[in-house]
Amino acid sequence: MATLLHYPLCAYSRSIRLALDECGIEVAAVEERPWEWRQGFIELNPAGTLPVLVTDEHGVIAGAYAISEYLGETIDATGNRGFHPFPGDAVERAEVRRLVDWFHRKFHDEVTSYLVDEKVFRRFGPNSGSPDTEAMRAGHDNLRYHLAYIGHLAETRSWIGGSALSFADLAAAAHLSTLDYLGEVPWEDYEAAKNWYALLKSRPSFRPLLQDRVAGFIPSGTYADLDF
Amino acid sequence: MATLLHYPLCAYSRSIRLALDECGIEVAAVEERPWEWRQGFIELNPAGTLPVLVTDEHGVIAGAYAISEYLGETIDATGNRGFHPFPGDAVERAEVRRLVDWFHRKFHDEVTSYLVDEKVFRRFGPNSGSPDTEAMRAGHDNLRYHLAYIGHLAETRSWIGGSALSFADLAAAAHLSTLDYLGEVPWEDYEAAKNWYALLKSRPSFRPLLQDRVAGFIPSGTYADLDF
Repeated sequence: MATLLHYPLCAYSRSIRLALDECGIEVAAVEERPWEWRQGFIELNPAGTLPVLVTDEHGVIAGAYAISEYLGETIDATGNRGFHPFPGDAVERAEVRRLVDWFHRKFHDEVTSYLVDEKVFRRFGPNSGSPDTEAMRAGHDNLRYHLAYIGHLAETRSWIGGSALSFADLAAAAHLSTLDYLGEVPWEDYEAAKNWYALLKSRPSFRPLLQDRVAGFIPSGTYADLDF
Repeated sequence: MATLLHYPLCAYSRSIRLALDECGIEVAAVEERPWEWRQGFIELNPAGTLPVLVTDEHGVIAGAYAISEYLGETIDATGNRGFHPFPGDAVERAEVRRLVDWFHRKFHDEVTSYLVDEKVFRRFGPNSGSPDTEAMRAGHDNLRYHLAYIGHLAETRSWIGGSALSFADLAAAAHLSTLDYLGEVPWEDYEAAKNWYALLKSRPSFRPLLQDRVAGFIPSGTYADLDF
């Protein structure tokens, strides 16, 4: 069985945990604290980033980008409930990748880095201290713009990347779920985004994420609630 | 013919200009200034990022990630001098993607964003002002670590991603070339990285980049010199 090194409140790790489960691939999930720069971890991934997949057959696959594309290339879409991380033709897959980039880069830089990294990694990491209130205000403002964009996509398509569930939905939901754990998402003002997220949240692949607990951070009251 | 919206000192744009040329695909390159948030540009790519490829056959492909994978999926590797952005089997491609992520994310965040974005985009962009000297010092320190890593890869492999030229080389060279334009690369201390870059720089695909000029920024004396 493959091993996945991950951290519970790392959105990149979460996107791959969801993708592996949707692909029907069982892995042993092992928590890694990237800020500790553990020697054995850096040997697996010199970038020091999560997630890292250690496969029996193909060795180490490092990072959400490489792992997601590896899954797309190696899974047999007929044998795993029909899920493919990049479904459709070249044009449809390009749209999925545009949105994966949107969430794993733009959303991360404009929201997750301010609201999750500031709160969680700053607390545990080498430069521990209080969250930067100005950064958190920027993160909250930016989140509203992104929730409106997700709602726009969800209202005009079956799933945010197109007609089929894709890695774009999983990447988006992964980031939002870390924010939701911390109670940072104003769902009540963004009904379309909320309805889309409720669909994701009720999938079996989401269950392990809803059971995550990080010492020092109590999840928001509705984090694990499917009827939030 | 397809159109590529790009900016001369944008490393993401440069990586795709190189990849298109290596794939033997001719495009009309049109300069876009992303900080102007031009309406027609945002309609093509709501993220407001470069590059954007407008194809005749497949519409708009937005962002270096989507374009590079699109090229990999649609080119016929036998008809374009044998170049493929992600060559080899699933394991080899995963290694190429790990390194693309290294340069387009880690290197960008740790070096290019400090040394190019601070100098160039800060000058033209909405928050114009002088470069942040502390950020620039961090960029210079980080660059040395990355040059050593490139040298290590170049000494142990034919190309930095493996046995064949790949998009990993192009992404790395794209970032370094923007720094080199500004005279920021201490080549003399990193011979292995320099030798690898000299190989890239002498390829026909690199020629258009060496002719780039940005008003207000004179390229370093050896920028276009193949014997630097």
